[in-house]
Amino acid sequence: MKKIINKPEEVVPEMLEGFERSHSGLVRLLPEQRVVLRRTPKPPEKVALISGGGSGHEPSHAGYVGPGMLDAAVAGNVFASPNPEQLLAGLIALKNKAGVLMIIKNYSGDSMNFGLAADMAAEEGVTTDSVVVNDDVALAGRDKPDWRRGIAGTVLVHKIAGAAAEKGLPLAEVKRVAEKTIAGLGSMGVALTPCIVPEAGKPGFTLGDGEMEMGLGIHGEAGARKTPILPADAVAEELVKKIRDDVGLKSGERVAALVNGLGGTPPMELYIMARALHRLAGDAGLTIAWSLVGNYMTSLEMAGLSLTLLRLDPELEEFLAAPARTPALIQ
Amino acid sequence: MKKIINKPEEVVPEMLEGFERSHSGLVRLLPEQRVVLRRTPKPPEKVALISGGGSGHEPSHAGYVGPGMLDAAVAGNVFASPNPEQLLAGLIALKNKAGVLMIIKNYSGDSMNFGLAADMAAEEGVTTDSVVVNDDVALAGRDKPDWRRGIAGTVLVHKIAGAAAEKGLPLAEVKRVAEKTIAGLGSMGVALTPCIVPEAGKPGFTLGDGEMEMGLGIHGEAGARKTPILPADAVAEELVKKIRDDVGLKSGERVAALVNGLGGTPPMELYIMARALHRLAGDAGLTIAWSLVGNYMTSLEMAGLSLTLLRLDPELEEFLAAPARTPALIQ
Repeated sequence: MKKIINKPEEVVPEMLEGFERSHSGLVRLLPEQRVVLRRTPKPPEKVALISGGGSGHEPSHAGYVGPGMLDAAVAGNVFASPNPEQLLAGLIALKNKAGVLMIIKNYSGDSMNFGLAADMAAEEGVTTDSVVVNDDVALAGRDKPDWRRGIAGTVLVHKIAGAAAEKGLPLAEVKRVAEKTIAGLGSMGVALTPCIVPEAGKPGFTLGDGEMEMGLGIHGEAGARKTPILPADAVAEELVKKIRDDVGLKSGERVAALVNGLGGTPPMELYIMARALHRLAGDAGLTIAWSLVGNYMTSLEMAGLSLTLLRLDPELEEFLAAPARTPALIQ
Repeated sequence: MKKIINKPEEVVPEMLEGFERSHSGLVRLLPEQRVVLRRTPKPPEKVALISGGGSGHEPSHAGYVGPGMLDAAVAGNVFASPNPEQLLAGLIALKNKAGVLMIIKNYSGDSMNFGLAADMAAEEGVTTDSVVVNDDVALAGRDKPDWRRGIAGTVLVHKIAGAAAEKGLPLAEVKRVAEKTIAGLGSMGVALTPCIVPEAGKPGFTLGDGEMEMGLGIHGEAGARKTPILPADAVAEELVKKIRDDVGLKSGERVAALVNGLGGTPPMELYIMARALHRLAGDAGLTIAWSLVGNYMTSLEMAGLSLTLLRLDPELEEFLAAPARTPALIQ
């Protein structure tokens, strides 16, 4: 296991301490509960946003805490949901007049624990509602929403819902905007290597020397198929076709795009994929109106990447373009 | 060779095309010469800044082109200097009243080619001056400046000199500020894995399963020593001690810090190192007044990282805090 860490069982608290100290102007940490909050809270008349999930996906989600995006992020153990008590601590810290929207990636543990926390928070006077992001198009279509995992497209939900909340929209409206985003959002990943959960000490799966896996999940869950390593252009073509078909994108539409590195893939390769994505989008008559390239939702040190496309309309485009000032995304 | 690329000989032009298309609001590319320029040029009364070097270090240097930092970046082949004709094209594109400062990393090819380009540019009426960044403390002290390589600390020179130029300081003053930065700048890296130059197709060196190399250069040049993999805290201690001794940092001083990923190291590990760095700085009586954590100067997909410390004074701190809007650094 080649990692620059200390004790495997301490990676999460140590990483969070390093994160808080590196971004102390923007965030503060509740270390016991592993909750990252804005340094300067939002006024109570505005909807607050909370997200969270297993660790190992940095900068998700703490990297998106700040003006224009999230108000709190809760970190579980590596690839494990935060427990309801942690999530409750986050919800109580956000207690306000306007209510709290929970942005949940579609994993059973996350959904269950956010739900339990919301029930407990209600007794403390915290109003919540939730959306579930299931942008992974690799395994199932929109007719089987439960089978679809939440992956890197979640960052765009943070951005858009965050801007809607910052603008002062009420809870039901922020939820509507988030759900519209999710309805037009598709992502798919590809991996060249597995990753190693520190406490496990060995890879969760194997890939041969010349092999890649299409559609792999961000925790190493099985993908759609294994294949010999393909050229970047062929990888992009397969991912973009699958996403376009899933979202139903048509010529003439405007989209947002995310080329997301999984942790072990360098910027050079991400930009080669960005080139392919821009060319394919152009061929399909799609205009990329907003884009990101970088490590936005990783899988520890996994080599690989995902592509995300989002259907835009004027409302979503306005929210995407709005300012944000967070550790991992400033615009 | 596990990479998501197309033809190995096309990685640089394809990466640059993807870069330009991903950041078209900020930059434009001269594709033949592989020069990245600001979309909106700086007024001719302000000093312009140019940097460049081998590719494979993305987002360096094109990622720092934009208001508050560079005016042009020139990309060589992977780990190879841009040739004088490329650099000349960059210098001519920046021809102005105030002059152009060349920020050169200390490699013989880079120094020679920037020098040749400056001579040719002078005949075209371009005024230039230069600084050479040699922040790598791994192999030689300040008594042997030629032996010191230019590595990730170069990004801080871009930031500070960029702010000085944006403020309207004349060429000699921008150079003075850049040289003061270099005088107080120290970096050192560590690698867990080699990287593979695409056209070579195999690693440039080897490291055993449980082995790491301290002080490795960003092209895989030999470091200070190989060692069994150490805990993050021990790695940080060795790097910070070496940098502090080199720069001569004393208790009570204010510093800037950069925790830089080499391409294959995920944010989780970078933040664990950031924690160690903040603790060690605190123990040494140093105040980290400004910091970055992320992939700022990579070595293709190498797993590893470098630490950088910079001595601050009020002037440098003002320039570090100034706004910047570039593909890889916005503040």
